[in-house]
Amino acid sequence: MAGGYSALRNELVSAANGVDYAYRDTGGAAGVPLVLLQHFRGNLDNWDPALIDALASVRRVVTFDNAGVGGSTGTTPDTIEQMARDAIAFLGAMELSQIDLLGFSIGSFVAQQIALVRPALVRRLILASAAPQGAAGMHGWAPEVIGAIGTPNTSPDAYLDVFFAQSASSREAGQEALGRMYARTEDRDTATTWATREAQYDAVCAWGIPDHGLLQRPSAIDMPVFVANGDSDPMILPRYSYLLAGLIPHAQIKIYPDAAHGFLFQHHAAFAADVDAFLTGAG
Amino acid sequence: MAGGYSALRNELVSAANGVDYAYRDTGGAAGVPLVLLQHFRGNLDNWDPALIDALASVRRVVTFDNAGVGGSTGTTPDTIEQMARDAIAFLGAMELSQIDLLGFSIGSFVAQQIALVRPALVRRLILASAAPQGAAGMHGWAPEVIGAIGTPNTSPDAYLDVFFAQSASSREAGQEALGRMYARTEDRDTATTWATREAQYDAVCAWGIPDHGLLQRPSAIDMPVFVANGDSDPMILPRYSYLLAGLIPHAQIKIYPDAAHGFLFQHHAAFAADVDAFLTGAG
Repeated sequence: MAGGYSALRNELVSAANGVDYAYRDTGGAAGVPLVLLQHFRGNLDNWDPALIDALASVRRVVTFDNAGVGGSTGTTPDTIEQMARDAIAFLGAMELSQIDLLGFSIGSFVAQQIALVRPALVRRLILASAAPQGAAGMHGWAPEVIGAIGTPNTSPDAYLDVFFAQSASSREAGQEALGRMYARTEDRDTATTWATREAQYDAVCAWGIPDHGLLQRPSAIDMPVFVANGDSDPMILPRYSYLLAGLIPHAQIKIYPDAAHGFLFQHHAAFAADVDAFLTGAG
Repeated sequence: MAGGYSALRNELVSAANGVDYAYRDTGGAAGVPLVLLQHFRGNLDNWDPALIDALASVRRVVTFDNAGVGGSTGTTPDTIEQMARDAIAFLGAMELSQIDLLGFSIGSFVAQQIALVRPALVRRLILASAAPQGAAGMHGWAPEVIGAIGTPNTSPDAYLDVFFAQSASSREAGQEALGRMYARTEDRDTATTWATREAQYDAVCAWGIPDHGLLQRPSAIDMPVFVANGDSDPMILPRYSYLLAGLIPHAQIKIYPDAAHGFLFQHHAAFAADVDAFLTGAG
């Protein structure tokens, strides 16, 4: 794995829905592959290579752009339900019949939907910076969050404000993560568009329309689940991770200290070890 | 505080509802007093003196038998709602107009009800080994739990099986807690009756009738709340603590390691310090 995630080729696979999906495929040890679902406006380059390389040291790891996102063709849908269908189409094209699934932020919404509509596909589920559909207080990001990372042109500082905590230690970790993500200069993924941002945020707001009855949905997620977040995430508050861990029958939870939305990049070694323990059944 | 909780007199106060309530009153520093609501079948002697003394080192602490329980007169009601009314009557008789409230196990159910029907009374709320009304899977204790601590004559071993974890360290902590609780030989509280056991378990089962809509209740608990449990409580699973922490708008949570239902006795020093930090607003 010379060069690791930063040096991986962008691949393309054509799915039955007519979309060509951009993806990267690494690791490759035997066993159930781990598939990752990316955050709001993120593409293949927005995964911290340090995290992917740590995860891929013990198993196959697949990252991809969902329909309409980054280097994939098609149109970004404005519902989590359609994003789940589009992700299932990608998995079909990859001939992956059983996976472990890690959804991050909006990706955690899509991951829950996949686990609910195609449970046989998901062996174990990891929900990072997650919330259940319908939870009160989840109707769109807070003003300071959408004001930071929802603008047409975002900045590294705005990214750090949301993905990392205010402490010097977290900010330093954030600078390091950004350095790793931007170290790659060749064959970077296609940037996500404003149309993707608009469609994804419509989906986020629709997912967050308060509806107490919908909180019953996670009770049907019956595979083992690992719920994780940073202790000071301003984008999806840790209380929603507690809520998920309470609503899902077989969930474990860990809240990482001194960390925000990007806790999994900041604590990449610890989180990868926790994920491995969970996926091997030791967690 | 020579002798501490173990040497305190049992006091009686007559309330407007005609009940004479048995209680103990200790500590006495200025500030908001902390009132405790006891577990299933417990009386004044079932509080670990090490915990009460630690709590009382910095504030006034009041323990009491609710109506019909132990040394109090009256009849144990078979609903959490009436237990809350009975507790409010005791607080009225004690002329306590604002308290911090710690509810343990069935006491946590009563504490939630008090916080909902008389919110002005409760400054800050601590829910130990707790669950929200209506949560799926909470309809009565598990067979091995009610089989251990629900029988006419319970044993120390049965108590240890529920209140302490299986590890040697937790069992040893349990033996020590039992030693402290039974060190008092004079003026012990009146034992709770079978009628109390029956009424309380009716209330527990009614509280646990699954009703997803009722999970919206904790969203109206708007004071700061500290939710706590042991990581291997067999009586009220830790997932219900996560659920509460997710449903309550302003909750913090701590799950104590290597501990079960009686985590607050096992970890009496750490828990008392966490309670103090929470009540002083530093937690």
